Amino acid sequence: MTTAPTAARELRIAVDAMGGDFAPRAAVQGAWLAAAEDGIPILLVGRRERLELELSRLHPATRRIEILHADDVVGMEETATAVRRKREASLAVCARAVRDGRAQAMVTAGHTGAAMVAAKLLLGAAPGVDRPALAAVFPNRRGRTVVLDVGANVDSKPEHLRQFAVMGHFYAQEVIGTTRPRIGLLSIGEEEEKGSGVTRGAYAALSATGLNFVGNVEGRDVFNGEADVVVCDGFVGNVLLKAAEAMAELIVGMMREELVRSSRTRVGGWLARPAFANFARRTDYAEFGAVPLLGVQGGCLIGHGRSNAKAIRSAIRSAYEFCQADLHQKIRDKIAELHAEEARLTAAPAPVEAERAPS
Amino acid sequence: MTTAPTAARELRIAVDAMGGDFAPRAAVQGAWLAAAEDGIPILLVGRRERLELELSRLHPATRRIEILHADDVVGMEETATAVRRKREASLAVCARAVRDGRAQAMVTAGHTGAAMVAAKLLLGAAPGVDRPALAAVFPNRRGRTVVLDVGANVDSKPEHLRQFAVMGHFYAQEVIGTTRPRIGLLSIGEEEEKGSGVTRGAYAALSATGLNFVGNVEGRDVFNGEADVVVCDGFVGNVLLKAAEAMAELIVGMMREELVRSSRTRVGGWLARPAFANFARRTDYAEFGAVPLLGVQGGCLIGHGRSNAKAIRSAIRSAYEFCQADLHQKIRDKIAELHAEEARLTAAPAPVEAERAPS
Repeated sequence: MTTAPTAARELRIAVDAMGGDFAPRAAVQGAWLAAAEDGIPILLVGRRERLELELSRLHPATRRIEILHADDVVGMEETATAVRRKREASLAVCARAVRDGRAQAMVTAGHTGAAMVAAKLLLGAAPGVDRPALAAVFPNRRGRTVVLDVGANVDSKPEHLRQFAVMGHFYAQEVIGTTRPRIGLLSIGEEEEKGSGVTRGAYAALSATGLNFVGNVEGRDVFNGEADVVVCDGFVGNVLLKAAEAMAELIVGMMREELVRSSRTRVGGWLARPAFANFARRTDYAEFGAVPLLGVQGGCLIGHGRSNAKAIRSAIRSAYEFCQADLHQKIRDKIAELHAEEARLTAAPAPVEAERAPS
Repeated sequence: MTTAPTAARELRIAVDAMGGDFAPRAAVQGAWLAAAEDGIPILLVGRRERLELELSRLHPATRRIEILHADDVVGMEETATAVRRKREASLAVCARAVRDGRAQAMVTAGHTGAAMVAAKLLLGAAPGVDRPALAAVFPNRRGRTVVLDVGANVDSKPEHLRQFAVMGHFYAQEVIGTTRPRIGLLSIGEEEEKGSGVTRGAYAALSATGLNFVGNVEGRDVFNGEADVVVCDGFVGNVLLKAAEAMAELIVGMMREELVRSSRTRVGGWLARPAFANFARRTDYAEFGAVPLLGVQGGCLIGHGRSNAKAIRSAIRSAYEFCQADLHQKIRDKIAELHAEEARLTAAPAPVEAERAPS
């Protein structure tokens, strides 16, 4: 049965139960937490028998979870485009459920590339959006920084970066809760003329958006809280995301090596454990939920492959807030407004100065 | 007096004594350490009276330091191009000393942009090199990764990335001491077809160099030791460098905040101090010396503005090794070999298959 979306509809989140390193258990537990404790209606997508078994272990049972059978799965080692062939893969079934209005957003901890392909192909780009973008949320000194694009696009043009800014603005405002988010353009110097050909073009495009554009920012500003949204091409954003993950692991690994070198530091490390635990909590992947693919028709949040139940639940909550805020309507309206403004400027008569006779 | 460089000449390093947050004291102390303890001849460039005063405080006196007077300085707050006007700035005097053969390399902790402008303008690009590149050395799980370019160029073409690979190869081999350095091309996926238009072109160019090219690498590989040299455009390299610095500071700052929250963790932190100290040593800027600007005629190493005496000494040692290894001659020879190989392929008769009559 296909339900057409209506204004008063109850929102529902489709959860890919088969994606991620700890699937289906982590996904089922996360979905159960979101349904039982947060009251979020869930469409749980995957092999029915297995999901029923996992659910039967969780108490109390909740009526807010409905299972949608999907026979197949896209493995983490497959190429992203495998999802085109695998029509019965849980990812494809999730995306069709959102397309058909059975759910309003999808959450997966599966293959990131395949999730993007499924969402772009089956949901399609939202009106006005040329290129959907993947957004990542980083911790910073004062709060959180949204960086986009982190890998959905390469070779972006200034107009694409402007659309990323609009999408990032609304994500920061509606989902993260930032007031009047400061938008920075990722470059290699603060002055307007610094950067690549694309960033110089984007600077002008961003200046005219009416958003809270604070100019060029640098790599360091992602972590020092000088901007709430950092806009960049998906190539540099993806390098940044993957480098930051690996660097955090390297630092933690090196600290651990040093702490076990002597009995003194071993005792110190043991006493300092609550501090390490707090630190881990502040930088925990699970706290930051998943990365949203912004600009497709319907919500799509992609979790880390290592997502545990807590991370899945957190992603489901983000997806729910995303739908509640009607983020896509806001993005669509703002992009339409920018296009209308441009059309007005293009159609406007030449400025008065040009009409004067030469003196 | 201008000394023409000869094969048997004694190498000498020009040190900009006026650049950096702790100038001139840190630079003079670093130069003194390199001269007195490492036996490296130094040309110390800056205000003579001040430098003589600083040197008079250090014992024993060394004859290996000669002072070259420079009346002016490029301030950290000035634009990079200020060095064009300020012909008597210590940076410009250093570069001219290298150009004129009074020294073979220059070391500065001053204005990075101005140092690049001075070196490119006064030393010029080495034969065969289209674009000099700034290389940064990152700690990784197993050793060190050289990443270039980190900010001297934007919008690099595949041929430029190939030249960066040649320069990085010899820097890793001769200065860092890596045997048969593995060269990775920074991209957003390991497969050859992944990446931007430029990286796909560069993949082909790098495959034919005869270097130990290991294919595409991702942001994470900078820190996990999967490559010894990572080649990229200066835009992404600069974002990576600045983000890594800020992220390391953020992590250390957050850890510190957590450690002082309770008396238990405070005691733990105190006991664990030797571990923190070892960790700091392993990731210390001063241990990694300065970033070399590769591909100019003569050596040019640019230290962090916060460089202390130890960092300056370490940079001077790197500069000395750089000159001893005759790095530029090796880079020049390799690039000439690649160009000759291309010319041979272009001029070669069509392959035999093409000459066959169609069957």
